[in-house]
Amino acid sequence: MKFEFYNPTRLIFGAGVLEKLGEAVRPLGGRALLVMGRGSARRSGLYDRVAGILSASGVSVVPFEGVEPNPRLDTVLRGSEAARSEGCDVVVALGGGSVMDAAKVMAAGVFYPGDLWDMMYVGPRRPRLPERALPIVTVPTLAATGSEMNDGAVITYQDLKVKAFVEAECLFPRVAVVDPELTLTVPRNQTAYGVSDIIAHVTEAYFNGVDGTPIQDSFAEGVLRAVVQWGPVAVEEGGNLEARTQVQWASVVALNGWVQVGTRGAYPVHMMEHTLSGIHDVPHGAGLAVLNPAWMRFAAPHRPERFAQFARNVFGVREEDHLTAAMRGIEALEDLLKRMGCPLTLGELGISDPDPELYARATLEVAGDREGMLRGRPGMSRLDLVGIFRSVL
Amino acid sequence: MKFEFYNPTRLIFGAGVLEKLGEAVRPLGGRALLVMGRGSARRSGLYDRVAGILSASGVSVVPFEGVEPNPRLDTVLRGSEAARSEGCDVVVALGGGSVMDAAKVMAAGVFYPGDLWDMMYVGPRRPRLPERALPIVTVPTLAATGSEMNDGAVITYQDLKVKAFVEAECLFPRVAVVDPELTLTVPRNQTAYGVSDIIAHVTEAYFNGVDGTPIQDSFAEGVLRAVVQWGPVAVEEGGNLEARTQVQWASVVALNGWVQVGTRGAYPVHMMEHTLSGIHDVPHGAGLAVLNPAWMRFAAPHRPERFAQFARNVFGVREEDHLTAAMRGIEALEDLLKRMGCPLTLGELGISDPDPELYARATLEVAGDREGMLRGRPGMSRLDLVGIFRSVL
Repeated sequence: MKFEFYNPTRLIFGAGVLEKLGEAVRPLGGRALLVMGRGSARRSGLYDRVAGILSASGVSVVPFEGVEPNPRLDTVLRGSEAARSEGCDVVVALGGGSVMDAAKVMAAGVFYPGDLWDMMYVGPRRPRLPERALPIVTVPTLAATGSEMNDGAVITYQDLKVKAFVEAECLFPRVAVVDPELTLTVPRNQTAYGVSDIIAHVTEAYFNGVDGTPIQDSFAEGVLRAVVQWGPVAVEEGGNLEARTQVQWASVVALNGWVQVGTRGAYPVHMMEHTLSGIHDVPHGAGLAVLNPAWMRFAAPHRPERFAQFARNVFGVREEDHLTAAMRGIEALEDLLKRMGCPLTLGELGISDPDPELYARATLEVAGDREGMLRGRPGMSRLDLVGIFRSVL
Repeated sequence: MKFEFYNPTRLIFGAGVLEKLGEAVRPLGGRALLVMGRGSARRSGLYDRVAGILSASGVSVVPFEGVEPNPRLDTVLRGSEAARSEGCDVVVALGGGSVMDAAKVMAAGVFYPGDLWDMMYVGPRRPRLPERALPIVTVPTLAATGSEMNDGAVITYQDLKVKAFVEAECLFPRVAVVDPELTLTVPRNQTAYGVSDIIAHVTEAYFNGVDGTPIQDSFAEGVLRAVVQWGPVAVEEGGNLEARTQVQWASVVALNGWVQVGTRGAYPVHMMEHTLSGIHDVPHGAGLAVLNPAWMRFAAPHRPERFAQFARNVFGVREEDHLTAAMRGIEALEDLLKRMGCPLTLGELGISDPDPELYARATLEVAGDREGMLRGRPGMSRLDLVGIFRSVL
C-alpha cells in the first residue's frame, strides 16, 4: 500500500440538518448560484425552503434550474455563465448526482480558460484539470452518487454522446449538508437505482484494487452489508427515516474515498455504463444494475477466491468451493437488485436496439489505455467487452 | 445519527514516502521547528536524513529535542518559545504520539494568548480552544496514537500530575507523512503498547457510542481484525514490512475519525489511563492494556449483546449465549495483549503502590461530568471506578 489521501469536505449529516445550510454557506459567499434539476425542488416546496434558509443568513439566491439526468456540457456552460454574469461567489447544488456534478463543473467553469471539455478524462489524452473553483456546497436530495463529498464529476458531451469524468481538488465541496429527510419522497425506482450505484462504487474498488488491503476490504463489506439490509427497506417504505438515513450514509462513504483509499481500484463497470447512458440517456444506477453482475460473471473465474469472499462476507454464502460461492454471491446480488425493481438486461433497461460492438468500441475510446484495454482485474479487451454487453441482451 | 465530520489532513502513506517530506513541507513554510523525542532519531541517523530532505527542498531546520513520553506542558512551552524566537513558520513532528501531540500544541502556542493549560479539557470548565497554529506536518515513527491525522493532543501538567487533552481544528496536521519503514526498528514492547493503543481507540467508540451505526461497527471490527492478525506479527518480527504497514495503517484509521464518526463515543478507558500515566508516568499503551479488558469486564454485563458482537466479529467466538460469548471475547483480547508482552495488572505495569481511591477521584476531577460521573456506556460512578482499578491490582 502506497497512496495519498485527501478529503477536506466538511460533512454535516443527519435528519434536519438542512436548517444549518445558511450558516454553512454564509462564510463562503453572499450570493449563491442555486443549481437544481428540472422542477421537482420547485414543485415540492424545497426550493422555497432552501431559498428562505439562505436569505435568512444573508445569502442572496440566483436560481439555476434545468439540470438534466446525465448532465450536459451545454447546461454546465450556461451555469458558469450565469454565475459569472450574476456575480455569484458560491455555488449551492440542490439535487441528485447530476445536479451536484454539474454544479461542481459550473463552479470551476467560472475560472476555466477555454473549452470546459478539456478538463475531462477522455481517452489517453491528458486533461487540463481545473485549478480553481467557486466554493461549492452540496445538498443531496438522493442517496446515490456520493458526489456530495468527493472531487469528481461526470458530464455528457451532448454532441458526441460521450460521458466522461473529471477529478480535481478544487471540486471538493467545502461543505456537504446531507439531510436524509430530503430523500423521504424519492420514488421507488430512483431509490433502487441509487442503491445500485452505491453498490457499484464499493464493488469496483473491492474487485479491481490491489491485494493486501484487509482494512479496506472490511470497510467495503460493511457498506455493502448495510445497503443489502437497508436498501430494500428504503425502496419498500420510502418514508422510513432510519432506512433512508442508513442508505444516505452508505452513499456518502461509498465514494468519499474511505473505501477506495490505497486500493488503486479501477472502475470498469462505471466506464461501460457511461457508454450506455451517454448513448441512450438511461439512468446511471439502472445501467449499473444491468452491467455490474454481468461484469462479475465475467471476472469471477479469474479470481474466484475474491468473489467468494464477497459472497460470504456480504451475503452470508456458505459454499466451500470458491467459484461456487462466487456464483451464489452474484446471484444474491442479482436477486437483491431485482427485488428492488432494477433492470438486469438491456431490454429491461429500455434499450430496444442494443449494439454491443458499438458499446465496446465507444467504451475503449473514452476509457481505454494505450494498448486498447480497459483497466481492471482482469484488464479487458474489446472482445471481452462485447461479450459482457452481449450477455445482457 | 446526526453529526459533523471534518478532517482536512493530507495523508501520504507507504514504505519510502519519507522522501516526499520536503515537497510536502516546502509549500507551508521555509523554516521548520523539527520536534523530536529524547535522542533516538539523532542516534539512528533519522534526524540527519530528515534534515537533509528538508534542506534539499529549501527548508531550514531548527531542531527541538527532548520531548518526553507523556509530554509535559513546560516542554511544550519551550517549543513554542523556540519556534517564535527562531522565526519558524512550520512545525514538523518526527516521533511517536508524544512528539506529535507536543508539536501540535507548540504550533498553537506560538499564537495563544495566556496560559497554554487553558486550552485543555480539565473538569467541567470550558476550555479556551486555540484558533490558530503554525502549519503542522507529522512524521510518525511509531504506530500507536493516530495523532498523525487528527486534531487532538494530550499533554501532562507536570506540577499537578494531570494529563488532559485538547481538540481543535487548527491542530489538524496539514500533511501526515506516514512511512512504515520508520517503524521497522521500534522495540517489541513499544510495538505492543502501540497495538494496545490502537485497539483501545477503536473499542472506546465501539462500546460507548450510540446504537444504529452498522457501517461504523463494520469499520471498527475491520480495524480490530487487522491488528489482531498483524499486531503480534509486528511484535515477533519487527522487520516485517507488511506487518508494520498494516499496523501503521490501522493506527491512522483507528483515530482519524472514520471509525468514530457519528457514534458520539466516550473515552472512559482513556480517561482512566490518563490518570495512571499522569501520576506514575507509565507508557500510555501499557496502561490501556491493563485497563481496557478490566473496563470491558465491568461493562459487558450491562450490554452483553454488544460485547458478544465484538467477540464474534473480531475473535470468531461462536458461543450462542451473549454474556458467555462476551467473556470469551474479553479473554481473547487479554490473551492477545499478553502474547504481545503487555501488562495486564498494575503490578505488571510497575506500579508498586497502587491507590484505586486516588485514581478514581483524580479521573473524575479531570473527566467527570457535573453529576460526578464518568461518561460512557454505562456511566461510571466513583465506586465503579474504584472497583475497576481494584480489579487489576
